[in-house]
Amino acid sequence: MFHLPKKVALEDVTLRDGLQNEDRIFSVHEKLALVRDLIASGVKRIQIGSFVHPAWVPQMSNTDKLFQRLPKNPNVTYTALALNETGLERALRTGVKHLYLGISASETHSRKNNNCTVSEAKKRIVKLIKRTKENNVKIRAGIMMAFGCAYEGKIKEEKVLDIAILYHSLEVDEIDLADTAGLANPKQVFELVTKIKAYTGDIPVSLHLHDTRGMGLANLFAGLHAGISTFDASIGGLGGCPFIPNAAGNIATEDTVFMLSEMGIETGIDYLKICSATKQLETLLGKTLPGRMCHLSENKSRTT
Amino acid sequence: MFHLPKKVALEDVTLRDGLQNEDRIFSVHEKLALVRDLIASGVKRIQIGSFVHPAWVPQMSNTDKLFQRLPKNPNVTYTALALNETGLERALRTGVKHLYLGISASETHSRKNNNCTVSEAKKRIVKLIKRTKENNVKIRAGIMMAFGCAYEGKIKEEKVLDIAILYHSLEVDEIDLADTAGLANPKQVFELVTKIKAYTGDIPVSLHLHDTRGMGLANLFAGLHAGISTFDASIGGLGGCPFIPNAAGNIATEDTVFMLSEMGIETGIDYLKICSATKQLETLLGKTLPGRMCHLSENKSRTT
Repeated sequence: MFHLPKKVALEDVTLRDGLQNEDRIFSVHEKLALVRDLIASGVKRIQIGSFVHPAWVPQMSNTDKLFQRLPKNPNVTYTALALNETGLERALRTGVKHLYLGISASETHSRKNNNCTVSEAKKRIVKLIKRTKENNVKIRAGIMMAFGCAYEGKIKEEKVLDIAILYHSLEVDEIDLADTAGLANPKQVFELVTKIKAYTGDIPVSLHLHDTRGMGLANLFAGLHAGISTFDASIGGLGGCPFIPNAAGNIATEDTVFMLSEMGIETGIDYLKICSATKQLETLLGKTLPGRMCHLSENKSRTT
Repeated sequence: MFHLPKKVALEDVTLRDGLQNEDRIFSVHEKLALVRDLIASGVKRIQIGSFVHPAWVPQMSNTDKLFQRLPKNPNVTYTALALNETGLERALRTGVKHLYLGISASETHSRKNNNCTVSEAKKRIVKLIKRTKENNVKIRAGIMMAFGCAYEGKIKEEKVLDIAILYHSLEVDEIDLADTAGLANPKQVFELVTKIKAYTGDIPVSLHLHDTRGMGLANLFAGLHAGISTFDASIGGLGGCPFIPNAAGNIATEDTVFMLSEMGIETGIDYLKICSATKQLETLLGKTLPGRMCHLSENKSRTT
């Protein structure tokens, strides 16, 4: 048989992993409209942006301003990404209550994305995590390229476990395994998650999946079977790291919600409302997004 | 843990389920070129076409002629679809050694696709199967809409099992569960396959999956876990029944081969060669197909 949870929490990463890969820069006003649509659809965790250098990722340069204007809602967790000290200090000034801090399991990606070795990145993130905890901000600690690297190919499981051990020792609130380049396969997801969870039993593990090779929902299914109940997704399947070739496409929020709902797993999210938001985003971007459910004409007939 | 087979057999259905949904009618010459490409890629089972009335599916009207000109290859099984007596007699005249005969588990689909009730369809297929066996032709007996109907929604498991029991009693060579409308979810695939296999233990069960809702490879994974080792696929993910709204898209042969290969499962198929065939098909059709692997620029770096 297989294991499935009764409920799944989805963190919508459209505003960060989605928009960072688009040429069009969204205004604070436009991003706020998207946040409101996500909340109206029932999304409870929203990744608002990242505190990275505006020269590197100009799409995220209004993240500080955006945080000042987010709708107050005690049921919604707003979170963001910070990768270095400068970013963390900017984040803390916004009063953010939840942050995503992460390092890469790949030496090449670490150099390209963060300009340091994995070992140096570990030293840095220990400082960042401690500083974040001092400010009573919850931490989701990410391991990028956990399932393979766009530059290096296979990543040894020990390298991933090694970072998870560090996070566990620092008592972070959640550990996220990110398939940053969309290279994971379901067998690998099941095996790696099982190994990581065997070590970090008391700390929840989440998955960040890309659908680059069409295996996104297969990997989600393998993750559920391995005991994961928190996943990232973006509306329409927008997404991808700007520094990784062909990494485009997180798993689509609406497709994920639909699949989970069909299997009797609650998310609290109305996938038809997400489909409407995706349609609006497609209009703004002037292109069709890879998500499936928003393009099916009969999707009027089903609700979550 | 989960179960995975060491080898998987893929039946390529591009020439039938793929091409029947396209406006463009492919000549015998063009279809033969595709057959040769599939064989060169390592495909061992090829669904060549269907023996249906040319007024209904004109794309399949040259199936008889095509059979006369297929390359002789003892390692390759050529097969085709027949849905009624006239079609079966046409098929038998070609000297075909393997046939797909099938009925629908949905009353509405049965009426629309075959102009009869499920009960009448059962009576008819008993005759077809007996006539086929008399001619020493192997039979893959299909259950269409096994996981849900585009018109009716849910299909009771008993209706599917009931047809499987009939097929089992007639000693067909393989039973195929077809997710004709792409409505299956992985939990359902695992559960229904497990129930069917518990009854038909000695007869192999195969799966025909569509990726309409992005769950195609997740369903494949669930099928593997439930003990299935034969699946249909079409290059580029071409496909869909012309009489079902939004049914488009079998699972893509290249994406399926890639995922299986990444999990250490052999198919004997070179997915890069399939990617080339998909690119040629896209040129002929003048459109981009949904398969993922053929559109990744770095796919040069990996072989099956």
